[in-house]
Amino acid sequence: MIKLVLQYLKIDRSVQFPIYLQVANGLIDLMRRGILKPGGALPPTRILAKTLEIHRKTVIAAYQELYAQSYTDILKNRGMFVSAVLPDIAPRPVHKGTGPSGVNKETLFPVKRKITNIAPFLPAKQGNLIFNDGFPDTRIAPLELLAREYRRIASYHFTDRFLMYGPEQGSENLRRELASFLYETRGLRAAPEDILITRGAQMAIFLTAQILLSAGDVVIVGDPGYSGANEIFLEAGAKLALAPVDDHGIDINSIEDICKKEKKVRIVYVIPHHHTPTTVTLSPERRMRLLELARKYKFAVIEDDYDFDFHYASSPIMPLASADDYGSVIYIGSFCKTIAPGIRMGFMVAPKNLLQEASLLRKLIDRQGEQLMEEAMANLLASGDISRHLKKANRLYKQRRDTLCNLLDEHLKGYMTFRVPDGGFAVWITFMKGIDPMRVAENASEMGLTISSGKDYYHDKTNWQPSIRLGFASLNNEELFEAVMLLKKAIFKLS
Amino acid sequence: MIKLVLQYLKIDRSVQFPIYLQVANGLIDLMRRGILKPGGALPPTRILAKTLEIHRKTVIAAYQELYAQSYTDILKNRGMFVSAVLPDIAPRPVHKGTGPSGVNKETLFPVKRKITNIAPFLPAKQGNLIFNDGFPDTRIAPLELLAREYRRIASYHFTDRFLMYGPEQGSENLRRELASFLYETRGLRAAPEDILITRGAQMAIFLTAQILLSAGDVVIVGDPGYSGANEIFLEAGAKLALAPVDDHGIDINSIEDICKKEKKVRIVYVIPHHHTPTTVTLSPERRMRLLELARKYKFAVIEDDYDFDFHYASSPIMPLASADDYGSVIYIGSFCKTIAPGIRMGFMVAPKNLLQEASLLRKLIDRQGEQLMEEAMANLLASGDISRHLKKANRLYKQRRDTLCNLLDEHLKGYMTFRVPDGGFAVWITFMKGIDPMRVAENASEMGLTISSGKDYYHDKTNWQPSIRLGFASLNNEELFEAVMLLKKAIFKLS
Repeated sequence: MIKLVLQYLKIDRSVQFPIYLQVANGLIDLMRRGILKPGGALPPTRILAKTLEIHRKTVIAAYQELYAQSYTDILKNRGMFVSAVLPDIAPRPVHKGTGPSGVNKETLFPVKRKITNIAPFLPAKQGNLIFNDGFPDTRIAPLELLAREYRRIASYHFTDRFLMYGPEQGSENLRRELASFLYETRGLRAAPEDILITRGAQMAIFLTAQILLSAGDVVIVGDPGYSGANEIFLEAGAKLALAPVDDHGIDINSIEDICKKEKKVRIVYVIPHHHTPTTVTLSPERRMRLLELARKYKFAVIEDDYDFDFHYASSPIMPLASADDYGSVIYIGSFCKTIAPGIRMGFMVAPKNLLQEASLLRKLIDRQGEQLMEEAMANLLASGDISRHLKKANRLYKQRRDTLCNLLDEHLKGYMTFRVPDGGFAVWITFMKGIDPMRVAENASEMGLTISSGKDYYHDKTNWQPSIRLGFASLNNEELFEAVMLLKKAIFKLS
Repeated sequence: MIKLVLQYLKIDRSVQFPIYLQVANGLIDLMRRGILKPGGALPPTRILAKTLEIHRKTVIAAYQELYAQSYTDILKNRGMFVSAVLPDIAPRPVHKGTGPSGVNKETLFPVKRKITNIAPFLPAKQGNLIFNDGFPDTRIAPLELLAREYRRIASYHFTDRFLMYGPEQGSENLRRELASFLYETRGLRAAPEDILITRGAQMAIFLTAQILLSAGDVVIVGDPGYSGANEIFLEAGAKLALAPVDDHGIDINSIEDICKKEKKVRIVYVIPHHHTPTTVTLSPERRMRLLELARKYKFAVIEDDYDFDFHYASSPIMPLASADDYGSVIYIGSFCKTIAPGIRMGFMVAPKNLLQEASLLRKLIDRQGEQLMEEAMANLLASGDISRHLKKANRLYKQRRDTLCNLLDEHLKGYMTFRVPDGGFAVWITFMKGIDPMRVAENASEMGLTISSGKDYYHDKTNWQPSIRLGFASLNNEELFEAVMLLKKAIFKLS
């Protein structure tokens, strides 16, 4: 008996968890495994204390705990016994599936829903220089400003207002500041109540898809396009209809053709400002036609304008939403490129009846956003810090764009074609015939340069041109030079 | 013509949005409304400049913009004309539904999914003293510590690690710290990879429901119970089966009866530590039986242990999850009560196959958590600051619990019954026959005290006992005294 106890009772003095409870739980475990049988005696406290090398008082406390939790009975002058009224439990070995952690690897119950089409996060190869898909440079993220505001709010606004439950639509201050920011920067008229603050554009697309789509509905997307959005539509049960993308953006004629064929077109997803991945801008004439079609076929236009704030051409083109007279457009934006992708803040501007449902679903998911963060962001918008940061970032990124394009012209002419993007964070290049991007990527990776595959942007992989995206924004001039040199080596190694 | 222009073109000098673009957009608007017809001439720049009282260069810039965006043609020596190649748009008045903001109130497309059963956030009546449902006191929230860590990370760890995209499962540091915290405080063995960091317990319940439930499935909940969870299960398409709750927690016999009748019981949702709203603890004997039933009927047990860290009795009872040999239990916890409800951080511990799907769905919703916040939390767990704060908070809340219970004994004996809760943030009181809580609440509200209705905790309103929850944690002794005095007045006013 004592042997068993020694074998099963593990005392861990290194943890805070009280030793008397460790003993009690150990004994409960023995009962549950059927090793200590109902009605069986517990070892005398003095002996158990001696064997476990703990104070007897500790064992007594453990036994009292067992008694208090009605695992044991006390028989006069005969000591403590495993309670007979416990449900009779057959001995059970620890389940096969149990991992080292003690948590099972598999559930006993069925897990019905499988989340398909989604790749888990994979960190890039350590130490490599990275031509990413096009992200801002986190080294210039105005994080000090954010932290300053955050701390200020934390210390001064020490009220329930930002620490308790708040509006699921998001901070009222942030929505007010954002409303004027949207008007001043892109002529988009929206009142604070027309805005829902989300966790990045991602959540805005997710909420919209969940509210508007049911199984079998059709969503029209550009191919190549943003696979992150496609994942969301597919998971919502929708069918994707693919429209080609040319130098003037997504092809409106194909959209109309699809609408004539398909009866259940609910959403057309566009990135008019700089289409992902090709960075082309949707022409004014196509914009008007798209709105006309939306009106005629009663589909929703999701205008993903995540990088509006980053344009290097003379003047930005107005969002579709600013010309939407009939409630066809859902305008989606993001601060994840303004601050950093890791700071999850975005928004959607939409008609009341949609915004209401989206807000309630948002409340169901996580109740509300990060209030303190939203308040800090509101302050940075009001103080003009965001505008100043954007001016600075735009100057820097424009210059990096030019650096990369010049380097490509100088060193890789004849191996690839590309057009200089009006904005955004990446250049979309297409390799000449005979150059296999996959093999270039393999060579590059060995040489210390990670480049992403352009193939991921094609839903229909057969459409794939041998193109990839070269993100310039997060690399400084030296890094861009080094990266292009490595890319050149990788290409030359092919022959 | 010029009259029209004056009537429609509004120049706003107070905003950053360039005036030449304001003019251009105004003219585009006139074209879109059909007021400026295709082929029609634009007013001469000099005249328009004069009428709008702006520099002629600005008008020229606007016209160049229109031309660049192909809204206009230039005819030699005849000036600028509205492009004839524009799609012919019939004049459209601004849509009736348009709000003052310019955003439509209604969508043109159908909004199919309605989020029912969910009440939008409503702020409490200003100035009133509040007996809330049971929340921590945000006045003692360790927000300075959090802000300190946040700022430290922001300034020193200035790397991509916390500012770019990261693991959807949440910060590895936080999961590692949490794993040992869970073992040390409640003997729950879990490895970092068994944990998913969520935005409050809310998101953990949402993800679990979305993965495990499909339309028509059955979820067993206690009645009265936590309506926040019920909302999630109903929205997932499940049917609720209600089990009564007594002084030993949820009634296991009724759970078994339901399992015998219903074939599709997928989830049993329990709050074993302190059942919401009644604060009773699930007895050890019932815990074992619940696990037995889970094994027999292959349902999932959601163990919502959101307030484990707040127990005032000698020793906490172990979580169900620590005795789960077969992968039946999903253990859910939260930091929203440790720091503040507004800081959305929680977690779930579950078998790999479920955790994997939940993590991917989480990625689809908002990609990842607030990395910097998660890192800050990890530091506070590692430094022991959280444990110290919890000790302090427990002492304070235990004393406030006693204060409230004594006040109720002293001043309201004969009007209500209650049991002293072992932990948590509220006392569940039941009024004597003839005392209508609704009328008490009305009186109290006029007198300056807001009390919540206990009725919300009943899914089957007919089961409602005249009970309410009195949250003591967020009120200090003086406030508790004042609140009880007001409650007394409100009751006395009935007769």
